[in-house]
Amino acid sequence: MSAALDLAARLLDEVRRRRPRVHCLTNSVVQKFTADGLTALGAVPSMTQAHDEVADFARNADALLVNLGTLDAGRREAIARALDAYGPTGRPWTLDPVHCEVSPLRLDYAKSLLARGPAVVRGNEAEMAVIGEAPAGTVSVTTGAVDRLVLDGRVIAVSNGHPLMAKVTGTGCLAGAVVASFLALGQDRLESAAAALMAYSVAAEIAAETARGPGSFAVALLDAIADLMPADLAERGRVADAAR
Amino acid sequence: MSAALDLAARLLDEVRRRRPRVHCLTNSVVQKFTADGLTALGAVPSMTQAHDEVADFARNADALLVNLGTLDAGRREAIARALDAYGPTGRPWTLDPVHCEVSPLRLDYAKSLLARGPAVVRGNEAEMAVIGEAPAGTVSVTTGAVDRLVLDGRVIAVSNGHPLMAKVTGTGCLAGAVVASFLALGQDRLESAAAALMAYSVAAEIAAETARGPGSFAVALLDAIADLMPADLAERGRVADAAR
Amino acid sequence: MSAALDLAARLLDEVRRRRPRVHCLTNSVVQKFTADGLTALGAVPSMTQAHDEVADFARNADALLVNLGTLDAGRREAIARALDAYGPTGRPWTLDPVHCEVSPLRLDYAKSLLARGPAVVRGNEAEMAVIGEAPAGTVSVTTGAVDRLVLDGRVIAVSNGHPLMAKVTGTGCLAGAVVASFLALGQDRLESAAAALMAYSVAAEIAAETARGPGSFAVALLDAIADLMPADLAERGRVADAAR
Repeated sequence: MSAALDLAARLLDEVRRRRPRVHCLTNSVVQKFTADGLTALGAVPSMTQAHDEVADFARNADALLVNLGTLDAGRREAIARALDAYGPTGRPWTLDPVHCEVSPLRLDYAKSLLARGPAVVRGNEAEMAVIGEAPAGTVSVTTGAVDRLVLDGRVIAVSNGHPLMAKVTGTGCLAGAVVASFLALGQDRLESAAAALMAYSVAAEIAAETARGPGSFAVALLDAIADLMPADLAERGRVADAAR
Repeated sequence: MSAALDLAARLLDEVRRRRPRVHCLTNSVVQKFTADGLTALGAVPSMTQAHDEVADFARNADALLVNLGTLDAGRREAIARALDAYGPTGRPWTLDPVHCEVSPLRLDYAKSLLARGPAVVRGNEAEMAVIGEAPAGTVSVTTGAVDRLVLDGRVIAVSNGHPLMAKVTGTGCLAGAVVASFLALGQDRLESAAAALMAYSVAAEIAAETARGPGSFAVALLDAIADLMPADLAERGRVADAAR
Repeated sequence: MSAALDLAARLLDEVRRRRPRVHCLTNSVVQKFTADGLTALGAVPSMTQAHDEVADFARNADALLVNLGTLDAGRREAIARALDAYGPTGRPWTLDPVHCEVSPLRLDYAKSLLARGPAVVRGNEAEMAVIGEAPAGTVSVTTGAVDRLVLDGRVIAVSNGHPLMAKVTGTGCLAGAVVASFLALGQDRLESAAAALMAYSVAAEIAAETARGPGSFAVALLDAIADLMPADLAERGRVADAAR
C-alpha cells in the first residue's frame, strides 16, 4: 500500500518543517516523555493547565491533546476552558481516555468528551471496549499489537510496533500526541492518524533493535523518532485496509 | 542464607506472573520513574490522586504506596480517602516518609500515618531517625549502604546495592514501590520486604557494571530489573539475620 | 581568558564539596530532570510547592530557583511564600520566565517578579525580548547558541553548547538550576553565572560526542555533568568579555 507510505513520509517531513505546536492537557506521569517525544519528532509541545492561561495556550495551538490519566477536578476545568477556546477554530483535537475502564466517573466524563467530536479517540483494547461508539466523523483508534483505525465503515490496520512498548509507561500517551501532531497538518484525518501510528511504531521497531530492556528502549525510541527516514517507512511500514 | 534467596526468586517470579496493581500516591518528581520501575518489574502501576476517583483506584489495588515527597493539602486528602477505602481490605500498605526531617508539619503527619499501622515504613537514615518507633506489626526499614529491616526484635540486613543509587533522584522512592509490590503476594512481610530490597539492589549492582554515570545508571537499572534472573539473586544476594 | 576557566573549575569543585541545597519552584514537566541534573552536579535538590511547607524549605535553602513553566495559581502562591521567607536571608535567587512571551498574564507576573531583584534572570531569546530591562544588580542572561550575560554594562559571552540541547525538553530549565547552584557559593554573581553556563555547556558538548539522538543525549548529559573535570573546562571552555 504505497500511497499510505508516501503520505507518512510526506507528513513526517511536513511536521519537521512546520513544527506545529501541540498543546497537551495530559497526565502528570508522562509530561516529560510526551514533550521529549514531540520535540524529537519536530513538533513543539506546550503543557500548561493553569485555568487563567490555558485558553491563550489552546486558542493558538496547531493541535490539542486531551489525555485523561491522573485526572482531577482542576484538569477537568482546564480541559473545559481549552476546548471552549480551541473548538471554534475548527482545528482537530485528540482524546485519550486513559483508564476509563477503572472508574465509572472517569468513564462518564470520557463519554461526554467523546460526544463533543474529537477528530480522533485513541485507547487500548480495555478502554475502547467500554467507551462506546464514536460520533460520526471521529476516527476510533484501538492500539495494541495491531493498531485498528475505524471511520465511517473504513478500517485501516497498522501492524508495526514492538512488545517493549508495553513495558514503558507513556508509550500509548505519546502515540496519542504523535497522532495529534500529524492531524495538525490538515490532511485526511483517518489516513493521517494511520500515518502517525505507523511512523511511531516503525521508530519503536528500530529502537528495539538496540535496546537491552525497557530503560534503554525508551531512550532509543526518542533517538529513532528524531532520526526516522522515509526509507525506514518504505522498508518497514505495514499499513493496510482491513475488513470491518 | 539460601532460604531468603529462594524466597526472593519465588516472589520475583510471582510478581511477574500475577502482575499486582500497585496504587502509588507518590510525589510529582518521581511518578514516571516509579511507574517505569514497577512495569519493568512486572507489576502494574496506577497513580491518580483525584479526590473523587482515588477510593475506586485504591479499593481494588493489590498494594498501596504512600510517599510524602512534594506533599500538599490535596495529596493529604487523597491519602486519607485512599486509606479509608483500602484499609478495610486488610491488604498491606507501605509508607515512605520522604523529607519528614525537614518540616515539622510533615513529621507530625508522617507520625500520624505510621500510627495507622502500615505493613512497612521505609526511609533513609535521617528520616527514620526522627519518625520514632513503629507500631507492633510494622516492619521498619532503613535503607542505605546496608538496608536494615526490623520487626518485633528480628533484624535482617541486606548488603547489596551501589553508590550510584544515591546519584539518581527517586531510587529510594522506587525501592518503596518494589517493596509494596512484593508485599502484595501475601507472604511474610518482613521476609518479603527483605527479598524486594535484595532483588532491587542486585539489579542496581548489575546496572552499575555498564553505567558511565548517573544518567546511564538509571536507564540500566530499569533494564536490569526487567531482566533479573534467579541466578543473579543466588550469585549476588547478601541477606542475613543481624544483631538488633 | 584563563581567570574565568579557573573560577569555573573552582566553583565546580566547591559545589561538589559543599553540596548546596537548591530549592526549585519549577514546572511539573522538568522536575525529575532538574533534580537529576542537580544531583549529578553535586548539589541537593528539593522541590516542594506545598503552601504550608514551602517557607520552611526555602528559608534554609542555599539557593532558590523560580521557574514559570506550567504556572498556576497554586504555584504563584507558593512562590510568594517562598520569596517572603527566602528574601530576608539576602541569598541570591534565580528567575526563569518560561514562555512569558505566550501569555500576557504570565508576562505581567514575570515582570513583577523581576522587579523584586533576582540575582539572575535567565531566558531564551523570545522570553528575554519581552520581559524588559532587569533592575540594577540583576544579571540578565539570554541563552542560545551563544549565551550572553549582562550586568551594569559588562557583557560576557559563553560560546559552548550543542544543538541537541534544543531537542530535549528541560535543558534550559536545568541551565537555570545550575546557575542557581553556583550562585549559592557567594562569589561574584556575573562571573558565577558565566562559570555555571560554561561548565554546563561543556558537559553538553561532551555528551553530544557519544549521543545518537536526543534520548541518548539527555542520558549522556547527566553522565557528563557528574564526570566533568577541570581539564575539560580548560580545554573546551569559551568565555569572553564581549561588546555590549
